[in-house]
Amino acid sequence: MKLKFTKMQGLGNDFVVLDGINQAITLDREQIRKLADRHFGIGCDQLLLVEKAEGQADFRYRIFNADGGEVEQCGNGARCFVRYVHDHGLTQKNEIRIETLSGVISPHLEVNGNVTVNMGKPIFEPEAIPFIAEKRALTYPLELPGQPVTISAVSMGNPHAVRVVPDVDNAPVDTEGALIESHPRFPKRVNVGYLQVLGRTHIKLRVFERGAGETLACGTGACAAVVVGIDLGLLDHQVKVSTRGGELTISWQGNDEPVWMTGPAVTVFEGEINL
Amino acid sequence: MKLKFTKMQGLGNDFVVLDGINQAITLDREQIRKLADRHFGIGCDQLLLVEKAEGQADFRYRIFNADGGEVEQCGNGARCFVRYVHDHGLTQKNEIRIETLSGVISPHLEVNGNVTVNMGKPIFEPEAIPFIAEKRALTYPLELPGQPVTISAVSMGNPHAVRVVPDVDNAPVDTEGALIESHPRFPKRVNVGYLQVLGRTHIKLRVFERGAGETLACGTGACAAVVVGIDLGLLDHQVKVSTRGGELTISWQGNDEPVWMTGPAVTVFEGEINL
Repeated sequence: MKLKFTKMQGLGNDFVVLDGINQAITLDREQIRKLADRHFGIGCDQLLLVEKAEGQADFRYRIFNADGGEVEQCGNGARCFVRYVHDHGLTQKNEIRIETLSGVISPHLEVNGNVTVNMGKPIFEPEAIPFIAEKRALTYPLELPGQPVTISAVSMGNPHAVRVVPDVDNAPVDTEGALIESHPRFPKRVNVGYLQVLGRTHIKLRVFERGAGETLACGTGACAAVVVGIDLGLLDHQVKVSTRGGELTISWQGNDEPVWMTGPAVTVFEGEINL
Repeated sequence: MKLKFTKMQGLGNDFVVLDGINQAITLDREQIRKLADRHFGIGCDQLLLVEKAEGQADFRYRIFNADGGEVEQCGNGARCFVRYVHDHGLTQKNEIRIETLSGVISPHLEVNGNVTVNMGKPIFEPEAIPFIAEKRALTYPLELPGQPVTISAVSMGNPHAVRVVPDVDNAPVDTEGALIESHPRFPKRVNVGYLQVLGRTHIKLRVFERGAGETLACGTGACAAVVVGIDLGLLDHQVKVSTRGGELTISWQGNDEPVWMTGPAVTVFEGEINL
């Protein structure tokens, strides 16, 4: 099978984007792993598949991790998705309705090429995250080998655990992050964010992504971190998030409002692979 | 600048190959780093540049590490180079003469698609490696923080230190390898191979590559390891080398004979990037 693809990145979170509208694409887990392999394939954190919408939306957007598993949502990927459908002439609209596993999202292409994504409403109910807890709380103790840690938990369409730490550069993202990611209280596993408050409008963030390990930046992780920071009374309603891959701006008015994320989306190269 | 490129791999050692004959290509260090970056660029261990020969050879072959530095020789790269010039119609010959920084090499395309490369003669003279030592020896003690280690040293067009170890899977490739790579007795730094003898015709190998860290497989490193193993009386003249990326066969008749390496070379995908 000959596949045309586009390699894109948002804050260094990198994607292989496939047009499933003009190409017939059926990929099994093994093929996705191969495409995502950085030595034997194209290499990416996630694979994004553009499909026709089944409902009223403009497109359907499917996301696969490097391990081949399908996931609900990826913020950096959503920005790349919008640039992709524009740059490849699949739509003329600036605001696009996209079906994802976790519902319809409506990203917006800015004149400077940045993309603002309505990331939907944060969900704090433990059962909906899913997270096993007796009732909703601002923070939860979580049992880990050695000693318990304090986390907050929120869903941005996908599950997030957030830890507020004094110095994110020295946070145990790889080790503790991996333990939290597969903790039995998160039945669908979880993304783990480490958040350092630099000021009421600026945080520093590192994220251990479910199925991928630490990535340079995680869009839904940035949303989750800011929402948790606001919820804890540590942050204002618009916050700059500095990640290893670059900067995002996250806005949330609280309560039932959606989270808005603005950031870059870049095409790196175009290619064709025999699979 | 719009660049067409081919992504290739030999045993998982991966390359961006650029045709500098039909495209005008001048790359500075920063651009090479960007092309080699796995998130913001194409991603590769080394960048290979195909150029017109200046002398009698068919092509000139230049090799750049991911850090932007030009290096003399890369065995896995040489195999990919041969497949590349064939597959892209730059030559019809099966045996090709190629100018490299370390002299002319003459690879041969086998009918099964594997490529056999004459890797030239090993050079044991310390001064020519370059390695600072009073005189040539089979092994040398090398001072490291903590305790000295025993190495052998050889040039395959590029400098190699080889360590014989009982269990390569537990060898300190990242830590000790990095220390040896930049040891002051190797003025041009050095590739560091860890070799485990499985039998007289079979070794297991891991290599810390100069400027790149541990790679899945290093062609000149496989040659250096077998030559050292034969020199030490541990191996026969034809040896299978198992690396994390796959298998190579290395032959050396000793003395003034060249080293022959046979192994795979695979095109992964074709692409185009704006630089």
